[in-house]
Amino acid sequence: MDNKKKQILLAERPIGTPDNNTFQFVETGIGQPENGEVLLRTLYVSVDPYMRGRMIDTPSYVAPYELNKVIEGGVIGEVIESKSDHFTQGDVVIGGYGWQTYYTAKETEVRKIDKDIAPISTHLGILGMTGLTAYFGLLEIGKPKEGETVVISGAAGAVGSVVGQIAKIKGARVIGIAGSDEKIQYLTEELHFDEAINYKTTSSLKKDLTKACPNGVDVYFDNVGGEISDAVLAHINKFARIPICGAISSYNLEGHDLGPRVQSTLIKKSALMQGFTVGDFANQFPEGSVSLAKWLQEGKLQYQETIKEGFENIPDAFLDLFKGNNIGKLLVKVADQSS
Amino acid sequence: MDNKKKQILLAERPIGTPDNNTFQFVETGIGQPENGEVLLRTLYVSVDPYMRGRMIDTPSYVAPYELNKVIEGGVIGEVIESKSDHFTQGDVVIGGYGWQTYYTAKETEVRKIDKDIAPISTHLGILGMTGLTAYFGLLEIGKPKEGETVVISGAAGAVGSVVGQIAKIKGARVIGIAGSDEKIQYLTEELHFDEAINYKTTSSLKKDLTKACPNGVDVYFDNVGGEISDAVLAHINKFARIPICGAISSYNLEGHDLGPRVQSTLIKKSALMQGFTVGDFANQFPEGSVSLAKWLQEGKLQYQETIKEGFENIPDAFLDLFKGNNIGKLLVKVADQSS
Repeated sequence: MDNKKKQILLAERPIGTPDNNTFQFVETGIGQPENGEVLLRTLYVSVDPYMRGRMIDTPSYVAPYELNKVIEGGVIGEVIESKSDHFTQGDVVIGGYGWQTYYTAKETEVRKIDKDIAPISTHLGILGMTGLTAYFGLLEIGKPKEGETVVISGAAGAVGSVVGQIAKIKGARVIGIAGSDEKIQYLTEELHFDEAINYKTTSSLKKDLTKACPNGVDVYFDNVGGEISDAVLAHINKFARIPICGAISSYNLEGHDLGPRVQSTLIKKSALMQGFTVGDFANQFPEGSVSLAKWLQEGKLQYQETIKEGFENIPDAFLDLFKGNNIGKLLVKVADQSS
Repeated sequence: MDNKKKQILLAERPIGTPDNNTFQFVETGIGQPENGEVLLRTLYVSVDPYMRGRMIDTPSYVAPYELNKVIEGGVIGEVIESKSDHFTQGDVVIGGYGWQTYYTAKETEVRKIDKDIAPISTHLGILGMTGLTAYFGLLEIGKPKEGETVVISGAAGAVGSVVGQIAKIKGARVIGIAGSDEKIQYLTEELHFDEAINYKTTSSLKKDLTKACPNGVDVYFDNVGGEISDAVLAHINKFARIPICGAISSYNLEGHDLGPRVQSTLIKKSALMQGFTVGDFANQFPEGSVSLAKWLQEGKLQYQETIKEGFENIPDAFLDLFKGNNIGKLLVKVADQSS
């Protein structure tokens, strides 16, 4: 076993796109667990767009990261030493302790996961935060009815790809918007979306939407914001529902995110636009997890992961999120599971 | 009795602010009611901001006005001749037949109103469309809880003034935004709003809001859109609700209504923004009407009307809406009630 652990700290708050100066790698002693604690070795680290928001010092739904502290986020770890009655060596757990290779956790800080229902990495994705985000945002805010049209931006991402499949399960017509031909092919051929539009190569997103949505848009699940959302808004139907999950197009903007104001459209269409984060539905997580696991086991949900290897590649993996290179959940594998 | 009726037609679709060329006055024969019809003399005509939207040929929640046809809208009329079993001479009715001095209505086109519970003009205002708009927008979308903070733009208008009073009835702290010292005084002294801000004279609406809303904004009832709404959005709390009732700041804009995109704020605050029109709640009108009449009779609701006199002044009254000169409901009195 190593006797040092690696950590990645927030070295400075980024303005615009984060770069190498944003992060600092350090090493420190691993330490010993005390009673009620477990020593964890990190297996997978999650990188997610929302983390960009925590890097700046503006009030949001979660506290900003502290400077010179480890960057927190979802992690899958393995118990390598336990001083807790609730865990034994070899248990695999999920926690939020972030970008470090080892961590001494209080037993209340982490939760054991079932290693058998699916690969353990899925607990950071389709069976975890991003799957639940898709589930609750679509079903609690979007509320698609059979035969309605659901449009999803960032459709090939960790959340969007699940949203579309759940919408299909609910009998909706599903149109995905994504940024590469590989993603378009994935959405239509693997996930059986009814249509998918490559916003980077289209000559007119509006025209493509008109063609793909002959009956208008009833639900628009928005992961990106910006001009893509402006275009979709022009197609919404009366009583449309618009869950606002992300606005990745704006996260690295240095100036204001200016665009057409939405108020008049919302009035004309009696439409609802609601921002949310998965934590808003925390007391319904058990229900969501059960449904997702069931659909996964029944083969009704597919998933894809983009897995980078190596702790030192975490910052690059994070930056890849904003380049739109990943399909499905983007993860970094830090170590092999020993058991 | 006159043997001609006056009508105001839509002569051309306005670009920017409507003017004299927008309207055309004509005279035509009054005609006789047939079986199942009533002949009405117009007493009051309602002018409302939403009518601006119907003057252009863009799909909205109601069909556009037709060129060279009478401009439709809420009217209080008196039955001067009845060929219907449901109406007798002297009955006062409400209808949507618009800007004309007489009208022959099918008995199903109009509804008798109770002349005794309040002045008949209130059926176009606090007991009518604008009161119901306030009632449902606030209670069904805004859902203010006791002790929460409710901010209202266009607060001295026909809708805003009722919204604030209902929010007070529900135990909320109420802040109004309006555009003249007379309106501010009306809101705080007559309607007992907790605070009112004159956006035209303040040096910083944001600072005034910070001071007036020390606990942030839980409900923002938006009648105006534009920069006022941008400023209020900066103050919303987690789980804020934002009923979008109007965007009068944009109705006469010739170009795009550009501003900061709202998506990121909605996510950070898990906030809801919902456009609506009163017709969305049509099947609940009886409940709303009963509550409004009860509060009015109990003295819990005050109202003010700005009444212009004379059919020929209807276009000017309509244009006044966009100058922000009126307090409460703006109406035009066309004739005296004979009975």
